[in-house]
Amino acid sequence: MTEIPPPLNPPDRLLCGPGPSNVSPAVLAAMQRPLLGHMDPDLADILLEVVALLRGVYRARTGIVLALQATGTSGMETGLAHLLEPGDTAIVGVNGYFGRRIVEIAGRLGAKIVAIESDWGYAVPNDRLLDCVDAHPDARLVAVVHAETSTGVEHPLAELGAALRGRDVLLMADCVTSLGGVELDVDGWGIDYAYSCTQKCLGAPPGMAPVAVSDRALERIAARRAPVPYSFDLGLLEAYWATRPAAYHHTAPVLHIYALHEALREVAAEGLAPRWSRHGEAAAALRDGLAARGLELLAEPEHQLAPLTAVRVPDGVDARRVQTRLRREHGIEIGGGLGPSAPAMWRIGLMGYNAQATVAARVLEALDAVL
Amino acid sequence: MTEIPPPLNPPDRLLCGPGPSNVSPAVLAAMQRPLLGHMDPDLADILLEVVALLRGVYRARTGIVLALQATGTSGMETGLAHLLEPGDTAIVGVNGYFGRRIVEIAGRLGAKIVAIESDWGYAVPNDRLLDCVDAHPDARLVAVVHAETSTGVEHPLAELGAALRGRDVLLMADCVTSLGGVELDVDGWGIDYAYSCTQKCLGAPPGMAPVAVSDRALERIAARRAPVPYSFDLGLLEAYWATRPAAYHHTAPVLHIYALHEALREVAAEGLAPRWSRHGEAAAALRDGLAARGLELLAEPEHQLAPLTAVRVPDGVDARRVQTRLRREHGIEIGGGLGPSAPAMWRIGLMGYNAQATVAARVLEALDAVL
Repeated sequence: MTEIPPPLNPPDRLLCGPGPSNVSPAVLAAMQRPLLGHMDPDLADILLEVVALLRGVYRARTGIVLALQATGTSGMETGLAHLLEPGDTAIVGVNGYFGRRIVEIAGRLGAKIVAIESDWGYAVPNDRLLDCVDAHPDARLVAVVHAETSTGVEHPLAELGAALRGRDVLLMADCVTSLGGVELDVDGWGIDYAYSCTQKCLGAPPGMAPVAVSDRALERIAARRAPVPYSFDLGLLEAYWATRPAAYHHTAPVLHIYALHEALREVAAEGLAPRWSRHGEAAAALRDGLAARGLELLAEPEHQLAPLTAVRVPDGVDARRVQTRLRREHGIEIGGGLGPSAPAMWRIGLMGYNAQATVAARVLEALDAVL
Repeated sequence: MTEIPPPLNPPDRLLCGPGPSNVSPAVLAAMQRPLLGHMDPDLADILLEVVALLRGVYRARTGIVLALQATGTSGMETGLAHLLEPGDTAIVGVNGYFGRRIVEIAGRLGAKIVAIESDWGYAVPNDRLLDCVDAHPDARLVAVVHAETSTGVEHPLAELGAALRGRDVLLMADCVTSLGGVELDVDGWGIDYAYSCTQKCLGAPPGMAPVAVSDRALERIAARRAPVPYSFDLGLLEAYWATRPAAYHHTAPVLHIYALHEALREVAAEGLAPRWSRHGEAAAALRDGLAARGLELLAEPEHQLAPLTAVRVPDGVDARRVQTRLRREHGIEIGGGLGPSAPAMWRIGLMGYNAQATVAARVLEALDAVL
């Protein structure tokens, strides 16, 4: 006999860590709507609306845009598994945990990796990436982390895309903590593969990984010799998400699609530029408050990401104990450093629904009470 | 500017196709509970409860048991990608769409496949599988579909497991439409890798893929030369799901975990044997009603699966038009044949919350009105 636990009764949390973030009541309510089957024509219409809305947020008019039923990490892996074949050379910008993860996954796929590293808190200079492209004319892919969630550093992606224009190498960007929170322009910047998640700046619960794939990347994929993973085969996924009549591939996570649809409606209603500004203003309020308290940030100021701010832990302070007290005494989650090699830090996220100066103020007040 | 669609307003559906199935009000309510972060100690406790409950449903006391944030197909792919290396021989029982999918995925992974085929509606005889094991002593894996969702055929899995006991070859079973609906005993039957989904007999919404991995399979995985996919690396997933303190690997789909927790509580409260009986009784009521109407089934009677019944379309009847009218005029979804090579059929699922004789009666009444 299995012992039966009581029904769940999780406490309220203000989620100001690296994500997930709290979702709006309307997004939560959307998940209570009647469940449709994955091949229902009414769901097929909803999928097309989600694709159109996602195209707006990614600013990707062509190519494939859809949401994987998967983690952001699967979004990363799907891109690498489509754009690289064993023996291909990939140039990877590494300045934190997620750049290292790209290296790890590309390595498992049999790629030759040239990692261009910067210290935690610093952007990977585009000049060094471009020199590397010159030095490795056979490189098939340049991969960078647009928003390094482990450090709060934003990569100057527009400039990198412009500098790579006309080159044969593809550009992949980790947009997990940037999509919907900071400026991003897949078409305009020439990004060939972008991936993100639903639970950060888009304001939906964790559960899906929106991706955008350029026409140029699709040509590369069509010319592959090695097969791609079946359950993330972008061609088969497109035949379900966007070709009509839809071809069966998998059973879609219907309630998460409802949630994403509502979250994307909110993004579209707010407008991209106002939404980016809101994230920027909330982050500025947080930074001002932290500075007033003498707390230092990890990221170099010119590349500070808005949705996530990494704060250095003052000498003599037990970082984890502060997090525990914030959670237990104030119902607030903030993150710590990610991985054993990370410097001591707290990571404060103001994303999606929580990207508000009033939320920043709540976090600062709680920090005052605990520190 | 992206055009903003109105809020979703999907119609009510009685979901009696191949899944998803309707979920109980308590499962839906669980998804409205406060969102926790993926590294919250309170969520870590919930994950352990889900694992314990899943062990009970799979009857898997040892090895790894957890739920992937993924489709059932990713559950299939994860197993094949862990248990096979390029060049390995796999024996696959194929009697429908999902057996073919195993062949497709194993082929993409570079395995040599020996497919033992039966016609749609017939089980793959265990004798033929065992003869094949004798003929291929180098085979690393035997894979069968316990419940072939495309035909409604149940594989005699207990007998296969017993016959393979003591052999060096591993046994993998597709339990997508069996877990929680028909007898299954991972430990007792010697299954090394089982995968399923949440949206069928377990009674949760679509979104996760519970898997069970035997200790013997874990030894095989530990001895691999080729790497496994990072985002479904079972060792890394176990370090998040069941090792404490939990090691970060991905952001868990928290609301789906709440739903799965509640659905598994319902399974445990009902008891496995009564739940299997309920699925059997609902299916018997459906079969009796179909027979009284002169409708024939696809599956051979001795291997008819309870949760899903495939019905042959009578001559001269437009199968798709019947499905459309059931959906539009009666709010009932049933499935059609899966894939271009399937015989003309309807697939009627009575799974989880919908495995009730009263639901069977509603489907039969609607069929009377439409046929």
